[in-house]
Amino acid sequence: MLPQGFSASGIYCGIKTDASKLDLSLFVSDRPATAAGVYTTNLIHAAPVALDRSRTPSQAIRAVVVNSGNANACTGDRGYQDCVRMAELAGTAVGAKGEEVLVMSTGVIGRFLPMDTIATGITTCRSKLATDNDALVRAASGILTTDTRHKIATRELTLGGRTIRITGVCKGAAMIGPKMATMLGLIMTDAALAPADAQKLLTAATEDSFNCISVDGHMSTNDTVLLVANGAAGGATLTSHDLATFGKVLAEVCTELAIMIPTDGEGATHLVTIDVEGCANRDTARLIAKTIAESALVKTAIAGADPNWGRIVSAAGYSGVPFDPAKVCLWVNGMQLYLNGAPVAFDAKDASRSIRENRDTAVRITFGEGTAALRFWTTDLTAEYVRLNADYTT
Amino acid sequence: MLPQGFSASGIYCGIKTDASKLDLSLFVSDRPATAAGVYTTNLIHAAPVALDRSRTPSQAIRAVVVNSGNANACTGDRGYQDCVRMAELAGTAVGAKGEEVLVMSTGVIGRFLPMDTIATGITTCRSKLATDNDALVRAASGILTTDTRHKIATRELTLGGRTIRITGVCKGAAMIGPKMATMLGLIMTDAALAPADAQKLLTAATEDSFNCISVDGHMSTNDTVLLVANGAAGGATLTSHDLATFGKVLAEVCTELAIMIPTDGEGATHLVTIDVEGCANRDTARLIAKTIAESALVKTAIAGADPNWGRIVSAAGYSGVPFDPAKVCLWVNGMQLYLNGAPVAFDAKDASRSIRENRDTAVRITFGEGTAALRFWTTDLTAEYVRLNADYTT
Repeated sequence: MLPQGFSASGIYCGIKTDASKLDLSLFVSDRPATAAGVYTTNLIHAAPVALDRSRTPSQAIRAVVVNSGNANACTGDRGYQDCVRMAELAGTAVGAKGEEVLVMSTGVIGRFLPMDTIATGITTCRSKLATDNDALVRAASGILTTDTRHKIATRELTLGGRTIRITGVCKGAAMIGPKMATMLGLIMTDAALAPADAQKLLTAATEDSFNCISVDGHMSTNDTVLLVANGAAGGATLTSHDLATFGKVLAEVCTELAIMIPTDGEGATHLVTIDVEGCANRDTARLIAKTIAESALVKTAIAGADPNWGRIVSAAGYSGVPFDPAKVCLWVNGMQLYLNGAPVAFDAKDASRSIRENRDTAVRITFGEGTAALRFWTTDLTAEYVRLNADYTT
Repeated sequence: MLPQGFSASGIYCGIKTDASKLDLSLFVSDRPATAAGVYTTNLIHAAPVALDRSRTPSQAIRAVVVNSGNANACTGDRGYQDCVRMAELAGTAVGAKGEEVLVMSTGVIGRFLPMDTIATGITTCRSKLATDNDALVRAASGILTTDTRHKIATRELTLGGRTIRITGVCKGAAMIGPKMATMLGLIMTDAALAPADAQKLLTAATEDSFNCISVDGHMSTNDTVLLVANGAAGGATLTSHDLATFGKVLAEVCTELAIMIPTDGEGATHLVTIDVEGCANRDTARLIAKTIAESALVKTAIAGADPNWGRIVSAAGYSGVPFDPAKVCLWVNGMQLYLNGAPVAFDAKDASRSIRENRDTAVRITFGEGTAALRFWTTDLTAEYVRLNADYTT
């Protein structure tokens, strides 16, 4: 369900060659909304990232227009002008200024947007705007590329006697590396937020969600997560305790969305949850988790249901994080494989069966360096991933 | 051909289950030799790495014993004692002290060495020692794991009127990441070298060879490259100009050996040479090269003969190296795909055919940050790599 004051639509307008898919979505707030964004840290970033970055945080956002099938990345000045024009077209359609619109694009890199197609598409999108769940699902579908399913998460909470809703959508199935979201995400809420608070809460929520996932470790040029808060639930701008409560629920929504990405990772047969504990701080925990998550040898071992603790602990060993090897312990799916720096006897057949028969794999690795812990999600690496990415076209 | 004063042998003794392969090799100098080593920087390192590190640089090395099929890694105190014992057994066999022997092991992690098998094997190895090329090939084969071919490089040079030979062997096909060799290598020479010089030359040669290759970016626990110089060619210990000349040829041998590793990379259908130019320094050039080389999306694109410049430049963009995106240019197989930050028109079919029809792929990416350049080698990523590593057993 959309939060109050929001409407949405998603259509096929002809950017993708496959007309059975959707490729253009519009999300509209019926009043000016606070908006915050977090973006790829890739030096090579797409036009919509540059545009949105210049427009957030804001108190005057009315719409977000998103196309899939074309990333509008590495397209130079013309690409940036196309992006500005896309915002203008969406603004005109919903009765707002171009500057009050944010843009996201995803798909192939290095091609110019088909602006005529997009102009016609935006008009159609405008005519299909609705507030029901079908409209939300269609809008969430219009932002997908190789994803096999749409990704929506919703929470409701009560603050000051008013019901507040937070609804997020996201996309991503490959070119997913942590350290900025590496995907598209849009979180809408009818809460009233000050721009600086919106930015702070979104940045914090992203840190433990979209920055804790990896499919292939390749950071994209278009990563963007937007938070749009229109205050339609009524009540004053959130502060102090209510703001903190809202932030906690926002983080839940972001985490739920983030996990959907590796769950739908290209070719993946396992969702791998990596718990790293006993670290000096969260940054070192994240670096260890990321190094394990991105090891092709760890990922292929899990694809092959191989409880290969050696690949996991050796990946931790080359992460660059200093630790005492004699204090490392490791569990896979609850079975201890490694204790204080040495392997322990375990039933390899049992461990292998446990990996093979469950889509979820739980890796837990502990160190003796401190109390910081972090949870990270990734996929296994299968021949199907290779096939999909060796043969990729629009 | 072996350098003067060296003999070698390689046998099957029963460490591997497949008796059609070799699994134990012995390299012997007929006199005490100078030895230097470079080792994995992985915090989780194997017993032989700890042992050899404590024994190099040295002026008193008589033999190097190497087993494959078992890495003697993550085996704790018992593993270390086994390693010491292995050196003693080899020393006794060739009439030297245990301390005069270096050890290398490669294969599966976390199992104790079958010491009885190895003891018998070393005696057999002793009886087969020879100086001919067949013996060298067998010794070079006894160190292999999933490699499909043995790896030997030889050079001769004349210094002070004497012919000096440098002969190296190495192994490695997966768990290959740069920043220390991530493989085993042994370079023998009949030149006379001071230990400190040997160490300096080996470290420098490794930097531009074994530290410039990657198959899967996973740094192993056992990486070791040894240089053993016995002076059997006669003449004084090398200094000044002769030492520099020797160092240059040593670097050639290391580079030739290093390239053999991704050439034989698991499942690889392409050897990818990445030239990074116009960087502020070699460290930033290496980081960019490594990030491109380890991108699963770049590697699968090359496997699929896709001239996907977007994946290459976006990998450079998230390498962490600062650069001006508007000065980036890219060529693949000599065809320019990207000029000053924007794609250029090119014949995609031609570019794809060029990748598909050649085993070698040349990627050249230039920046406007300085004059440093670096060459790096990697493989593509195929479904066969995944199959090999999802189903890996001894």
